[in-house]
Order: sequence, then structure tokens, then C-alpha cells
Amino acid sequence: MFAIQDFIKSARDGTLAVIAALLFVASAYAQSDPLPSWNDTASKAAIVSFVEKVTGQGSPDFIPEPERVAVFDNDGTLWVEHPIYIQLAFALDRVKVLAPQHPEWKETQPFKAVLEGDLKALAASGEKGLVELIMTTHAGMTSSDFQKIVTDWLASARDPKFKRPYTELVYQPMVELLAYLRANGFKTFIVSGGGIEFMRPWAEKVYGVPPEQVIGSSIKTEFRMQDNTPTLYRLPEVNFIDDKAGKPVGINQQIGRRPIAAFGNSDGDLQMLQWTTMAGAPARLGVLIHHTDSDREYAYDRDTEFGRLDKALDAASIAGWTVVDMKADWKQVFKD
Amino acid sequence: MFAIQDFIKSARDGTLAVIAALLFVASAYAQSDPLPSWNDTASKAAIVSFVEKVTGQGSPDFIPEPERVAVFDNDGTLWVEHPIYIQLAFALDRVKVLAPQHPEWKETQPFKAVLEGDLKALAASGEKGLVELIMTTHAGMTSSDFQKIVTDWLASARDPKFKRPYTELVYQPMVELLAYLRANGFKTFIVSGGGIEFMRPWAEKVYGVPPEQVIGSSIKTEFRMQDNTPTLYRLPEVNFIDDKAGKPVGINQQIGRRPIAAFGNSDGDLQMLQWTTMAGAPARLGVLIHHTDSDREYAYDRDTEFGRLDKALDAASIAGWTVVDMKADWKQVFKD
Repeated sequence: MFAIQDFIKSARDGTLAVIAALLFVASAYAQSDPLPSWNDTASKAAIVSFVEKVTGQGSPDFIPEPERVAVFDNDGTLWVEHPIYIQLAFALDRVKVLAPQHPEWKETQPFKAVLEGDLKALAASGEKGLVELIMTTHAGMTSSDFQKIVTDWLASARDPKFKRPYTELVYQPMVELLAYLRANGFKTFIVSGGGIEFMRPWAEKVYGVPPEQVIGSSIKTEFRMQDNTPTLYRLPEVNFIDDKAGKPVGINQQIGRRPIAAFGNSDGDLQMLQWTTMAGAPARLGVLIHHTDSDREYAYDRDTEFGRLDKALDAASIAGWTVVDMKADWKQVFKD
Repeated sequence: MFAIQDFIKSARDGTLAVIAALLFVASAYAQSDPLPSWNDTASKAAIVSFVEKVTGQGSPDFIPEPERVAVFDNDGTLWVEHPIYIQLAFALDRVKVLAPQHPEWKETQPFKAVLEGDLKALAASGEKGLVELIMTTHAGMTSSDFQKIVTDWLASARDPKFKRPYTELVYQPMVELLAYLRANGFKTFIVSGGGIEFMRPWAEKVYGVPPEQVIGSSIKTEFRMQDNTPTLYRLPEVNFIDDKAGKPVGINQQIGRRPIAAFGNSDGDLQMLQWTTMAGAPARLGVLIHHTDSDREYAYDRDTEFGRLDKALDAASIAGWTVVDMKADWKQVFKD
């Protein structure tokens, strides 16, 4: 009996020791969790499992550091894109600032619509109207002057719903994810339909992504010597649209390697996810951010003008992409 | 007398000790000299002085690491460009390989000229002929197929003068310079008029420059899903010419920062050196490689079809650029 009681006691001690050890590990894990804004759901598990698979020494799916390229869409994937794209809000504000120099805009579309706040008439001006709006507000100055205009605007503009600067409306779980990937030897790139020179002035500070790792749409620029000073002048002519089938083209042009992980949120990202994950290699990660949280942000997918997620959502289940449910998978959306 | 002799003796010992110390330092310096293929001339001194100025802690010209961007032309700056550009030799060889599938080429310029080895007739076909030659040999396949064609060709092709693979005809002093700059926190980029997808397959191995740091001319590519496999297909249409005034444009498009050091060898690099050095900032480095060594390589400048150095040479003395005299400044041209 004595011996048995001793055994039971030592077993209980052992159990307590194991529990204590587990609690210690759990606490250490919680403290060092690189993704604290993510709930412990299947989405987080899929991302962490992928990273461990490609970085683990001796893992059959190990990928050397230089090939660890991860690409991120921007609008709707890293920061908000509703009620309208932030760059469109910038263009509308620029029209108002420039209007006094253009009295004719009071009677000319799409400017009239912008000045009257008539978004329906603006939408009716179609792609032609939108391009004219972008060219008028984004061209006709040097690249460095444009950079200053963007920086100044972001410093003062506020989002209509959250009343915060736009650069604070970046998704905290995604900012953590960018840092987590870099800590694991990834090079993180932005691949956005948005303007490359609209993103570069702030992407390094906000996302930790340096200018040379930002890919985006662009207008043509021209080298000019002005008073013995070299400048790059922004012309009212489209150079490249980094959206849909343009994204793999932009990636190949600027990176020259195929990514091993891609993060998007709309049909504009479909081909980027295909290009990344469907090359026959086993260890590839495709992720779609699904906007499901009307309380903390917005809920939209198939029926929206900005960031429509339809074909890509259908493709996700076939291709095995991870669909992040913002409401269920994220502890917080923005940093407090 | 005794005391004085002792004094002289100890002074002599001291001198010997100083000489020994100097010899030791010189030997340690020689061993750790990061630019052993450079003679100790003004060119080397200018480069080293610039690097120490921008990297020295507390230096008034200190530049943080992320801004230490150095750009290098390729043809004639990092590897040989005579008797003809290596990529042109590739195109001529491709015409010969593809000729059996194109019997009509025997009677059609510029292909007839290539097949008959008539470089004069080829030159007479002008830019139009050259573009046709490039499109025929560089388009009509996927990017990954083109990469394989380039890699296979470089493995077997030999330079007519040196009888060595082209990838061995890179300038050893420049390879050392690339490594020296990287060791000092610089990011090194290639900015070449040559084809971006012609350089990327070998630039990392040969220069230590990864694909995402290669900028060059390009043709358009198109994203295509073929049998459920995503590909990028190379189209016979010019996308971007990364030469002359195109170089600052390409740099801005792909890097998004202004370089602080630029290395070129021809008028094609003039605007890149202007863009780098003439922005008003004090610590900027512009370097031109002057081909002056007909024994070990070639001697040419104002009168050549490939790599003409004329306007840029005139500009160098006004702008304060360093002109490297290959014959005088380089201990060796190629690695033995």
C-alpha cells in the first residue's frame, strides 16, 4: 500500500510538473506570439504552418532565403478601401484644391460631379472620366513635387467613418504578418493596383516596405534637365496598370522571381494568386482577406464597386487558398 | 659618448620598430584590401574616400544604409561589349539555330545578312532591322523558356578574341567593387540598356546581384493560363528601353529612390550619372570606365558603334566624375 501511495503521489507531482511546464510554455508562447492580433483559428494555423514548412532546416519543403518572396495587395488587403479607394479620395480632394485655377470645371464632367459631390454623375462618367480625373490630379509636376503633395495630404486628411488619418487605417494583423514573414527571412513586396508613387512616400514607415519593394500602377515619367537640375516629370499618360493579369507581369518585371506567398482580397488579385500558387511546387501559400466585419470595418464581397471578391472567392476552394474571415480570425482590425 | 651612442642605438632600434610596425600594417592592409585588382591611383582613392565619407559614423556626409543605392551599367562597365554587344552575339546565334525553320530568311533582311555573316549589310538594315532581329529571337516563348535558352547559350558560347565563356569576361576590379560596396551597406543594382530577362539568369551568380536588383530593357509580356498552368508569354513588342534618358526613368520606376553612386562607361549612362550626382547633395559619386587598354581588352571612346563615350566624357570634368583609366588603374582586367 505504502509503495502504491508513493507511486500515486509521485505521479501526481509529475502531472503537476507537466502542467506547470505546459503553462510556462504557453505563457512564453503567448508572450512571443508574433501574430497577437490573430485569433487561434484555422487561418492563423495555415499561415504559421506554411512558414514553418518552408523555413525549417531539414524540412522537405525548405526554401532558401533569397527565394522567400511574399507579395501583398494594398487596398483592402493592408488598408481600407471603403467607402472609396483612398487614392480616389485624394484625387477628389485635389480637384477641390485645384478648382479655383480651373473655372471651366464648374461646367465640365467629371470635375463638375466632383465639385458638386455627385458621386452618381461621377460614376456615370465611366472609366474615361476616372482616367481624366487621375491624369489631371496626378500628372503635370515632378515626381518629388508629387511625393510632397501626397505626404501633405495624408498628414491632414481624415477618413469619414473612423475620423482617423488614413495611414492609421492599416490592418494591424497584416502589419504583424509582414513583420513575422520578414523575421523568417522573407522579402515582402506590395503589388497594388494603386499608384506606385502614391504608396512609396509612406509604405516604409507604415508597413516596413522600402520603395524598391513597392510595385504599382504608374503614369509615364520623362527625364528633364531644368536649370542644370535633373528632374523626372510626370506625364498625363498611362504607363502600366498593375491589376488583374497585370499583377504577374508587374511582379516579373520588378522582382524577376515567382513569389512563394501571395495575399489579396479581390478579383484584382486572382491572377497574382494563380501565378504564385499554381506552378506545380508544393509549398505555396495563397491568402484572401474576406471583409466580413460590418461592425469593426465593412462587410462586402460580390456586390461592391471597390474590391469586388467574386471569381477569386470561387477559385479559392478549388485552389486551396486560405480565406481569412476578418470577423472571426482577427482579434482587432486597427491598432488602438 | 657612451650615453650618446646608447641614444643613437636606441633611436635606431626605435626606427626599426617603427619600420617593422609600418610593414606589418602595410601587409595587413594589403591582405585586407577589398580592391586588390585596383592600382593605388587617384581613381581608387576617390572611390574609397567616398565610401568612407558616407559610411563613417559621425561623418558630416553620413548616409543611412537604406539610402545607399549604387547603380551599375552592365555592357562595357561590368563586362565586355566589343567587338559587339554580347546580347547581339546571342541574337545572331539564335538566328542561325532557328534558320532551318525559316527558309525564307535566306532572302530576307536582316536575316540574310546574319546568315551570310555580312555585318555591313546588317548595319545597313538600321534600327528597324535590329528591332526585328531582337523580336524574332527574343519573343514568342514563355519567360521561363527564354531563361533556359539564355542559360544554355552562355554555357556553350565563347568570345571570339579571348576564347572564354562570356560570363568569365566580367571585369574583376568591378566585381570587387560591387562586393566592397555591399560590405559597406550598399544595395547594388544593375541598370542596363540590355534585356532584363537576358541578364537575370546569371547576374546573381556572376555579380552577386539578385533578380530584383536588375533593371533593363524589356519587351511586353502577357499572362496566360495554359492547361491550368499560369505562364508569362513574351510578345514581339517593345515595353521599355532602359538607355540614355530612360535610365533615370527605369531607376525611379523600379527603385523609387535616387542613387548616391553611379557607374557607367558610355553616353548611354550620361543621364543616369546626372540624375545621381546633380541633385545638389554633396556626397555623390559618378564614375566612368574609360576603355584604354588595347592589350588586355580594347581601347575605344568617341568613335565606336558599341559603347560610344563622347558627351559623357566631356561632361565628366565639369561634373567632377571620376574617369577610370582601365590601363593605368586596373592591375588585372579579368580573373585569371
